Amino acid sequence: MSALQKAVVLLSGGLDSAVALACARRDGFECHALSIDYGQRHSIELAAAARVAGLLGAASHRVVGVDLRAIGGSALTSDLPVPPARPLARPDEPRSIPITYVPARNLIFLSLAAGLAEVVGARDLFIGANAVDFSGYPDCRPEFLDAFSRAVNLATRAGVESGEPYFRVRAPLLLLSKAEIIRLGASMGVDFALTHSCYDPDAAGRACGVCESCKIRRRGFAEAGAADPARGAT
Amino acid sequence: MSALQKAVVLLSGGLDSAVALACARRDGFECHALSIDYGQRHSIELAAAARVAGLLGAASHRVVGVDLRAIGGSALTSDLPVPPARPLARPDEPRSIPITYVPARNLIFLSLAAGLAEVVGARDLFIGANAVDFSGYPDCRPEFLDAFSRAVNLATRAGVESGEPYFRVRAPLLLLSKAEIIRLGASMGVDFALTHSCYDPDAAGRACGVCESCKIRRRGFAEAGAADPARGAT
Repeated sequence: MSALQKAVVLLSGGLDSAVALACARRDGFECHALSIDYGQRHSIELAAAARVAGLLGAASHRVVGVDLRAIGGSALTSDLPVPPARPLARPDEPRSIPITYVPARNLIFLSLAAGLAEVVGARDLFIGANAVDFSGYPDCRPEFLDAFSRAVNLATRAGVESGEPYFRVRAPLLLLSKAEIIRLGASMGVDFALTHSCYDPDAAGRACGVCESCKIRRRGFAEAGAADPARGAT
Repeated sequence: MSALQKAVVLLSGGLDSAVALACARRDGFECHALSIDYGQRHSIELAAAARVAGLLGAASHRVVGVDLRAIGGSALTSDLPVPPARPLARPDEPRSIPITYVPARNLIFLSLAAGLAEVVGARDLFIGANAVDFSGYPDCRPEFLDAFSRAVNLATRAGVESGEPYFRVRAPLLLLSKAEIIRLGASMGVDFALTHSCYDPDAAGRACGVCESCKIRRRGFAEAGAADPARGAT
């Protein structure tokens, strides 16, 4: 009897990582979801992640606490105000790095995913990184993901003992626009009402509608010709 | 007026990272020490790290919590018993990976160090990794540290905006024997009574004397022709 291949899927509670999880399920993986409680100001994300993990059929869901507030340096983990959106860039336009950038975030998150992958026996690490809408984030670029793959295979028991490249970083959304991600997710039955994107929700968890993440999400649904079912999205 | 160059120094409370911090101070760096509370069973390490940071002149010392117990997979973070030492290997002898290996630990720790380095404006990341006595740990090997350097320069704002390799991983103890590390530390005035190495101390914080870490430490002091001033070390 051959067991299902296992994957670790980084799950933030946002739209992109929900679609990444759906891709991993579509590809036949037994999925172990990993969310990071890093002191983000909007912990409503973690509740969304738990809902997404359950409804998209993850085999397990873990939340690992990492106190990035002790490091600081980002509007998402400190008392810096979340800025209103900058004018949205065209996909081919270079962006500066926004203040919502969290230093080394994807490096830290993928490292934790690799640790979990060793424990559960997974080789594939799924991440919803996207180089189009969030081109200002250096750790969402293909060249970083390639370099990380080399490092993780040298860092780990599984990588060393297998004698070949063992871990594979999979970023199925890397080169898609937000509209394409939404169409892809919809085609796999992802219920976007489960997901949360806003950087600065109100106390009831409703999206603010004005931060950069809200604007990118809204433009994506508009371009996909779909309505956003999330609370506060309209 | 030129400010001191800054470094982030990973500080565990053990002997090696104390000597690495002394090396960074000797080289003229303003040192920002970073300890990770990862659910290690012997949190006495963190108290030792705070003492070492203070007495060796670190400019700051942060403890970042990372709940690796939620991931598991190591005798150091779970309920697996800490094993007695295996027969000590000669430095040139290949070792299997011990069960005290923590999945992806140095990858995770260096990633957090990079995040802090971005925030404080440091380029140099010091780690007390050693490829000789702990040759069983894949993430203590030069080839991993090289691959990590490439990844971190692609993952971070500082790495990308500088347009050149920005972060430098420095492992000044990488190719030294434990005896050589002890002699080097002693020559810089490191007080080894401050440091803690044992994987399985008693409730009063005394070293067990039988775990692998204790045995490597004891052999190192013997070969260096020095007495170990740490509690329970004799």
